[in-house]
Amino acid sequence: MRRNIYLSKLTLKEAQEKFFKTLLKNKITQPIKGELVSTEDSLGRITAEPIFAKISSPYHQAAAMDGVVVKAKSTYGASESSPVTLKIDQDFHFINTGNPIPSGFDAVIKIEDINLLDKAKEEKSGDISDDFTDNLKEENIKEIKIFSAAFPGQHIRNIGEDVVANQLIMPVNHKIRSGDMGALLAGGVNQLFVRKKPKIAVIPTGDELIKPEEKITPGKIIEYNSKVIKAMISEWGGEALIYEIVKDIPNDLKSISQKAVEESDVVVVLAGSSAGSKDFTSEIVRSLGEVLVHGVAIMPGKPTILGIISHTPVIGLPGYPVSTIISAEQFLKPLIFRKLGLSALKREMVRVNMAQKVVSRLGNEEFLRVKLGKIGGEMMAFPLPRGAGVITSLTEADGLIRIPSLKEGLDYREEVKTELLEELVKIKNNFIITGSHDLILDILKNELQENFSEFDIISFNVGSLGGLMALKQNRTHLATSHLLDPESGEYNFPYLKKILPDKELVVINLVYREQGIIVKKGNPKKIKGLDDLIREDINFINRQKGSGTRVLLDYLLKKKRINPSDIQGYFREEFTHLMVASTVVEENVDAGLGILSAAKAFNLDFIPVAKERYDIIVPKEYYCDWRTQRLLNIIKSKNFKKRVMKLGGYDLSRSGSVIKE
Amino acid sequence: MRRNIYLSKLTLKEAQEKFFKTLLKNKITQPIKGELVSTEDSLGRITAEPIFAKISSPYHQAAAMDGVVVKAKSTYGASESSPVTLKIDQDFHFINTGNPIPSGFDAVIKIEDINLLDKAKEEKSGDISDDFTDNLKEENIKEIKIFSAAFPGQHIRNIGEDVVANQLIMPVNHKIRSGDMGALLAGGVNQLFVRKKPKIAVIPTGDELIKPEEKITPGKIIEYNSKVIKAMISEWGGEALIYEIVKDIPNDLKSISQKAVEESDVVVVLAGSSAGSKDFTSEIVRSLGEVLVHGVAIMPGKPTILGIISHTPVIGLPGYPVSTIISAEQFLKPLIFRKLGLSALKREMVRVNMAQKVVSRLGNEEFLRVKLGKIGGEMMAFPLPRGAGVITSLTEADGLIRIPSLKEGLDYREEVKTELLEELVKIKNNFIITGSHDLILDILKNELQENFSEFDIISFNVGSLGGLMALKQNRTHLATSHLLDPESGEYNFPYLKKILPDKELVVINLVYREQGIIVKKGNPKKIKGLDDLIREDINFINRQKGSGTRVLLDYLLKKKRINPSDIQGYFREEFTHLMVASTVVEENVDAGLGILSAAKAFNLDFIPVAKERYDIIVPKEYYCDWRTQRLLNIIKSKNFKKRVMKLGGYDLSRSGSVIKE
Repeated sequence: MRRNIYLSKLTLKEAQEKFFKTLLKNKITQPIKGELVSTEDSLGRITAEPIFAKISSPYHQAAAMDGVVVKAKSTYGASESSPVTLKIDQDFHFINTGNPIPSGFDAVIKIEDINLLDKAKEEKSGDISDDFTDNLKEENIKEIKIFSAAFPGQHIRNIGEDVVANQLIMPVNHKIRSGDMGALLAGGVNQLFVRKKPKIAVIPTGDELIKPEEKITPGKIIEYNSKVIKAMISEWGGEALIYEIVKDIPNDLKSISQKAVEESDVVVVLAGSSAGSKDFTSEIVRSLGEVLVHGVAIMPGKPTILGIISHTPVIGLPGYPVSTIISAEQFLKPLIFRKLGLSALKREMVRVNMAQKVVSRLGNEEFLRVKLGKIGGEMMAFPLPRGAGVITSLTEADGLIRIPSLKEGLDYREEVKTELLEELVKIKNNFIITGSHDLILDILKNELQENFSEFDIISFNVGSLGGLMALKQNRTHLATSHLLDPESGEYNFPYLKKILPDKELVVINLVYREQGIIVKKGNPKKIKGLDDLIREDINFINRQKGSGTRVLLDYLLKKKRINPSDIQGYFREEFTHLMVASTVVEENVDAGLGILSAAKAFNLDFIPVAKERYDIIVPKEYYCDWRTQRLLNIIKSKNFKKRVMKLGGYDLSRSGSVIKE
Repeated sequence: MRRNIYLSKLTLKEAQEKFFKTLLKNKITQPIKGELVSTEDSLGRITAEPIFAKISSPYHQAAAMDGVVVKAKSTYGASESSPVTLKIDQDFHFINTGNPIPSGFDAVIKIEDINLLDKAKEEKSGDISDDFTDNLKEENIKEIKIFSAAFPGQHIRNIGEDVVANQLIMPVNHKIRSGDMGALLAGGVNQLFVRKKPKIAVIPTGDELIKPEEKITPGKIIEYNSKVIKAMISEWGGEALIYEIVKDIPNDLKSISQKAVEESDVVVVLAGSSAGSKDFTSEIVRSLGEVLVHGVAIMPGKPTILGIISHTPVIGLPGYPVSTIISAEQFLKPLIFRKLGLSALKREMVRVNMAQKVVSRLGNEEFLRVKLGKIGGEMMAFPLPRGAGVITSLTEADGLIRIPSLKEGLDYREEVKTELLEELVKIKNNFIITGSHDLILDILKNELQENFSEFDIISFNVGSLGGLMALKQNRTHLATSHLLDPESGEYNFPYLKKILPDKELVVINLVYREQGIIVKKGNPKKIKGLDDLIREDINFINRQKGSGTRVLLDYLLKKKRINPSDIQGYFREEFTHLMVASTVVEENVDAGLGILSAAKAFNLDFIPVAKERYDIIVPKEYYCDWRTQRLLNIIKSKNFKKRVMKLGGYDLSRSGSVIKE
């Protein structure tokens, strides 16, 4: 076998410089030439030449108002007490906005300022009739009276007031917006040269890949990177040519690469760039042209390949979706922008404080995806999952924090700069809910959106205890909790007293819900209760420490005097009800503790064990917040209740009520 | 005749409330229903239902790294000094990223951490050959040695690590971005219901309108509002159906409106909504349905009509382009957003200081378009032309300031909030140049863009003296000036000493240029020099007071003892060379003083009168600014010089040099 074990890593900056300098030297980054398009079809395109006005706008001196056009001199001396009478044709003409000014006239008086017309209007008013056109002539009016003097040029638009012939309307390399089309057409520019869209060939590779429409089986991976890259290319102004998936057969990839180089301006090979036994991309590029870079010290995105084949840039993007996207942003985006004549503007940056400590590996610049939220006036960054395979870590991100390669991480509450991926106005409204997980949080989220919400709920599933800790450290707006106190048998209050003794809080019930043992469909192992968990033929999946469900389990086991270490799988943990249920379906696992709705989602069986109270803990300062009030309205709404009841296992009798101790 | 003289004006808020409440009551703002599209084609569309994952991703437990998969237990105790030997098949398998974990194995070791493979690699290394596939098998390796223990789960991705089956991937009313498509496909969602695009019928009206491709003649107006609105509708997520231009024949407009109501979700009538004698729109809406609002107290945008015909909302937009756009943003955009299920997010706001006083009319909320620039740490707002017909006032705007209807205006340096129309990162780089106008500023602007500039030049043509005043008040980065001191015959320095005695300045020559009398092609009135200007058959067009050209004219007239009031048209002023030239072409005007390039742009004749020095005045604090240096590089570049020389009338021998007194 043959593997590219040693990637010669360059830093991001080194890699970009090497790549773009080589392209520049070879004149490959020259902007692409123009094509003639109709102005009407030019939205979002980039000018390939400076655009000068062909005609002036207005094209003639024109009335700026509806009214009459007069000779200013003939109005001098007019006042309320001594109005001046003007004769039609000789002294005035009726005129509408935009009409040309007749020769010899030099001022417009607004129709509202000539009250002789009132009578005419009264005569003609009433409902519209089918033949109301003929009697609308201005013939009836022969004279008007005016009550103040007009000055020369009054309410007249001069030629070229908007655009003057030969002026630069827009420079080369300008992206055309909707309003720009108006300026172009006003200046008589009906067609113009815009940059052709760079053609980007995208070749997905890998034996394990299947198309989204094919049926997935273990060992197969749905190929969606090409779809994402295609969308990104179109957003950046290019045109993607997506090739069929190429199997890991070097000669196939080689011949297809050769074809792609001929058909496109840039070739992108997806995956095959790392150290797997089937990663041939770099060798193929080397055999057909030149590899400039193989391996960039960024995370995600390390196994990137940058090369040239017959004057065409070739980019090998890593196979993990987040790596693909981050690497494409660093190398493909600036390349497309150069070809379009645009400079890639940096994203807006804001200063944020880390909501939690992050340890980063030395030697790589890390692109940390974060969710942002403003809590107590402080903009905080919440790290999202860091795996390169977790696409949702990018789709949910509001920002990207770059951790330099020589930094070991970020401290709790350290101030760092974040590149914004979302609009700041939107981010500022994010409402953070931390704590216990329940499927109804998804329903809440969806109901909000359904009602044109101006904010999003961001929920972090860290368990009930984690939620209370986040409240204590002001890293969340609200918390969700269902913590049972073994001694008093009471929910939440004993914990609040202990953990948040000084905080004024409002406890609002969200639901009561059933917890139970989630087992395979049909309950093949005939599990009847917790006592069965110690059986040798039963494999259990547990929830993480600090979660309300774990606290409940431990309480129940203690009551039944069951020793946790007698349960096989007790030490294996998952973080949500859905993950527990999913584990019970897919694997050599027979049971887990969780809620009915999770069992139902996976069509599993459920053995009820306990009913518990699940609350929202609201700090007093957020109780009157518009977002809390909005949530409470939704919680009390019929629609929400209907949808929750459909899930099963919930009691909504006290939903939305304040719970007192 | 019949005119809609009395518009019953509502405030913007009243009008919006009346319109949307009535639509809500009539259930017209319900989100539009969904249509099934392939996920691949869903970019930018809005979900019409909550989307749940159909499968988990990863679908199987998978290797997260390239390497070998082992049983963790078999590696315990391994160290550098006592490596553990593993046998193929029994103790380990080779594995690539993404491959499923075979049953019984539970940890992955990275290929880099197994150095026995080095030998294999060396054996096989070398250039790629055409048939290099067969000997790449892993068969050669039967045993490996490892040097540290693996833990269970090491480098293994669990099922559902990214997306777990049945989880909410995105709620209803979510706009799909490129990365979202990845999350959807990873969750097995290949097609989904997205909101249909609302169909918006757009009917341009007016006898005076011609299509952009028709030849313009005086009295005609190019109809481009429908093109701009079409582009805006598509940016907002709707689909525009543009109708042919309708003449001002009420019955035509009536029957077309009826047709449009049947074919679309919203009908937009362009123009015909004001007080002109041909403004029938409101009566037609009234005859077919109901007019809810006619006249909104906003400027521009006042003559807006809001109504309903047979359950279809009808919006009459005013005819002036800026009015059209502003009114559409206030009424059409939120309507489209509602139909799509989106809440119209407000634009980002920043606090700015007014760079100049603005007087506003009481009774209307004014939407003032402003250019923004950061000068000396202060973000300043420069009002753009306020006419509703000046589309360039909107295309050039960085921000919109709303002046409340009961406020008489904005003071110089008053702090106000601005809605951003451009990205703040871009705005922050704006480089303001105030003062004298010359066509080469356009060339400079274009050269910058051609060289992938990260900043724009914003030039305000207020004359040389205005430029120096702006420097004095810190309202500009640089100034341009060609002010002749009549006493010393020197340029600029005497003025700088007088106006800016305490400011450290660097004076850089941009060009020397020829000023002359611009006359009609062929010089029909046989003008030979300034002495001819007092002739009775000559009409002159002047430049504004404070402009260098005006100062030059007055100096030359004085020298020749010509009395300015003997020149017909001396008191009529234009603000730029191009406007002077344009006036000489189009009107009953014979001559103006200006530069050769302006005369050439309009194919006019030119009688040289003087050669003058045209400088850039740079405050010392901006001399080292990267933008100034960038400009100086361009001014000294071959390309720039070539383009300027093409214009004619320029001497570039000292361009870019510092001028000492």
